[in-house]
Amino acid sequence: MDKNILNTNVITQIGIMVKDIEKTSQVFADFFGVDKPEAFWTDAVDKTQTEYKGSSTEARARLAFFDMGSLQLELIQPDENPSTWREFLDEKGEGVHHIAFEVKGLTEKIKILEGNQMPLVQKGEFEGGRYAYMDTSKDLKIILELLEID
Amino acid sequence: MDKNILNTNVITQIGIMVKDIEKTSQVFADFFGVDKPEAFWTDAVDKTQTEYKGSSTEARARLAFFDMGSLQLELIQPDENPSTWREFLDEKGEGVHHIAFEVKGLTEKIKILEGNQMPLVQKGEFEGGRYAYMDTSKDLKIILELLEID
Repeated sequence: MDKNILNTNVITQIGIMVKDIEKTSQVFADFFGVDKPEAFWTDAVDKTQTEYKGSSTEARARLAFFDMGSLQLELIQPDENPSTWREFLDEKGEGVHHIAFEVKGLTEKIKILEGNQMPLVQKGEFEGGRYAYMDTSKDLKIILELLEID
Repeated sequence: MDKNILNTNVITQIGIMVKDIEKTSQVFADFFGVDKPEAFWTDAVDKTQTEYKGSSTEARARLAFFDMGSLQLELIQPDENPSTWREFLDEKGEGVHHIAFEVKGLTEKIKILEGNQMPLVQKGEFEGGRYAYMDTSKDLKIILELLEID
């Protein structure tokens, strides 16, 4: 395996799949004594250009972010369209979906991981950046999210 | 639910259950370009006083820690005795088992969480501190580890 592929080992987010983001956000806010963040829908596919397993998908999700020390907890409630979010929720249920790292040169990083038998699962654009979920479950036992912020 | 139960929202560890800690530690070390940490066995039950679901258990695990920015990744390979580690590995397979927070007054925190329908799953002592895994999966969708360091 190539070494030090990401050029970072700083975890920036933990993504948790949930069925009811309003309810679970409120529980997190109460439990940790913080304000309940506003949940919001990801943009439509014309903006996000989301691809799941190599095909365009209209999948969207509602997201809510909590600042937890040096990293964020991201709650994710997917819609019914095909996505890694929906697949995970249907197959494994609610729980930790991914761990995220911020990288430079996302396209190149995706290629390097793919060359190490770590397939791209889903990618998309968002206001100010883009992401890729890489299936590193065989090696690292987790789904890895690569985040590139402009 | 009681509010701000932990008096902290700083995540200190992410615990990942693995089947082969030597192999997976090497992959993590290579992937992130860091040294492979020495894995070690937790102490025997006479020292750890481990209780799983209210009963004493001889369960032990091999642990390896990686410093990842401000928090640690903990790899855990359990033995065959009854534990939350073994149960998770058998039922859900390899992957994220818990998210940890450091607290003061562990015994009191356990009581408060139990009073909020978040049951104690497993607890034990280690050199320099003690831990409790709380089943917060209904509310927070994760297993929570409370760590008390002396």
